[in-house]
Amino acid sequence: MSSVEELTERVRAFARERDWEQFHTPKNLAMALAGEVGELLAELQWLTPEQSAAVMADPELGPRVRAEIGDVTVYLVRLADVLGIDLVTAALDKLSEAGTRYTVEAARGRADKIKDA
Amino acid sequence: MSSVEELTERVRAFARERDWEQFHTPKNLAMALAGEVGELLAELQWLTPEQSAAVMADPELGPRVRAEIGDVTVYLVRLADVLGIDLVTAALDKLSEAGTRYTVEAARGRADKIKDA
Amino acid sequence: MSSVEELTERVRAFARERDWEQFHTPKNLAMALAGEVGELLAELQWLTPEQSAAVMADPELGPRVRAEIGDVTVYLVRLADVLGIDLVTAALDKLSEAGTRYTVEAARGRADKIKDA
Amino acid sequence: MSSVEELTERVRAFARERDWEQFHTPKNLAMALAGEVGELLAELQWLTPEQSAAVMADPELGPRVRAEIGDVTVYLVRLADVLGIDLVTAALDKLSEAGTRYTVEAARGRADKIKDA
Repeated sequence: MSSVEELTERVRAFARERDWEQFHTPKNLAMALAGEVGELLAELQWLTPEQSAAVMADPELGPRVRAEIGDVTVYLVRLADVLGIDLVTAALDKLSEAGTRYTVEAARGRADKIKDA
Repeated sequence: MSSVEELTERVRAFARERDWEQFHTPKNLAMALAGEVGELLAELQWLTPEQSAAVMADPELGPRVRAEIGDVTVYLVRLADVLGIDLVTAALDKLSEAGTRYTVEAARGRADKIKDA
Repeated sequence: MSSVEELTERVRAFARERDWEQFHTPKNLAMALAGEVGELLAELQWLTPEQSAAVMADPELGPRVRAEIGDVTVYLVRLADVLGIDLVTAALDKLSEAGTRYTVEAARGRADKIKDA
Repeated sequence: MSSVEELTERVRAFARERDWEQFHTPKNLAMALAGEVGELLAELQWLTPEQSAAVMADPELGPRVRAEIGDVTVYLVRLADVLGIDLVTAALDKLSEAGTRYTVEAARGRADKIKDA
């Protein structure tokens, strides 16, 4: 079993044990995901780009950023599970599409062409 | 190699081929992640909780929701890669912490105790 | 002077007194705005639509929701000020555009036509 | 009547004319607000801080940023109206609180003390 599948089952069990499935509608989970992304942004918002690049070396900020990334991942995995979406496949499909829209020749080094990764 | 690691390398290569690494500071990637989560919320915002639970069966909305989940995942994976964070491990660690804070006995069926998953 | 102009000057002075203008680039302020909107979502995420409609009557949640609305407003006003945008005029302009795109006849009672307010 | 009150009534009428009040629960409006903030972030995400400071001078980006600020404002005003919250008063109250927490002496020039504006 892949690590994402393992994580998905662990989060699923976590919700079931606490009888929280009633709260885990896609709307609620999407809101929770946005809330955790907001907390992640809050850790980085006043840093310069260079400070943000070095944030994981900071003994106070590093663990907090890692914790927020963890929270975001938990909710994304839970939301995908409830929707019946395979996260990695959905991501690979978008990457392929983006590869067609942003060819290496046209997009190299240009920020104005970056609408999606 | 796990599927997340494979996806991580594909996104990394995608950015490198296009010389986009210069734009991929943690701040910028966090903003991009928030932007994609916003697009996901937009697909669900006017639906009732019940409509949102059935959204993947909708021939028009289902693919759009899957596409946004894909975009969110691409940016989360890229951000974690740039920060040097293992997504799944960070998520499992937060889940363990939450398990301690929200014990099954105390948290069962209660929304007011749900601050984190 | 209108109340928004008064608030704008108060926030401007608040930032100046603390020598915080250096941190108030549009990028940083947009991130801060997203962070506060995230905190607002977090207060509502597990409520049913009906519970959310009654949230201001809740002695614990009401003040917290009001506080988050306050924070979101402070950052929106600050961001608009730094960008030199008149908030109310920009909003009225978008409302006019939306009025053209979503005519009363076509849009009445239909959620699928609601892309913007 | 202040400009915010005028805008509030215009947005209220806009929703009523189209029979959209049924969709305007606090949860839905908060999600819509987050969606529009996401669109705002997307306009700024790849810019350097300096480019973001000059964005309003860009003939293509300037109008788009102004449009997103307009959309964010419309939803914030609508959400506050539905919740019965006076936006400006709520903001001024938070500013006062922050003034107590971040005194000029302690907070001057320091980003680590900036948790809220």
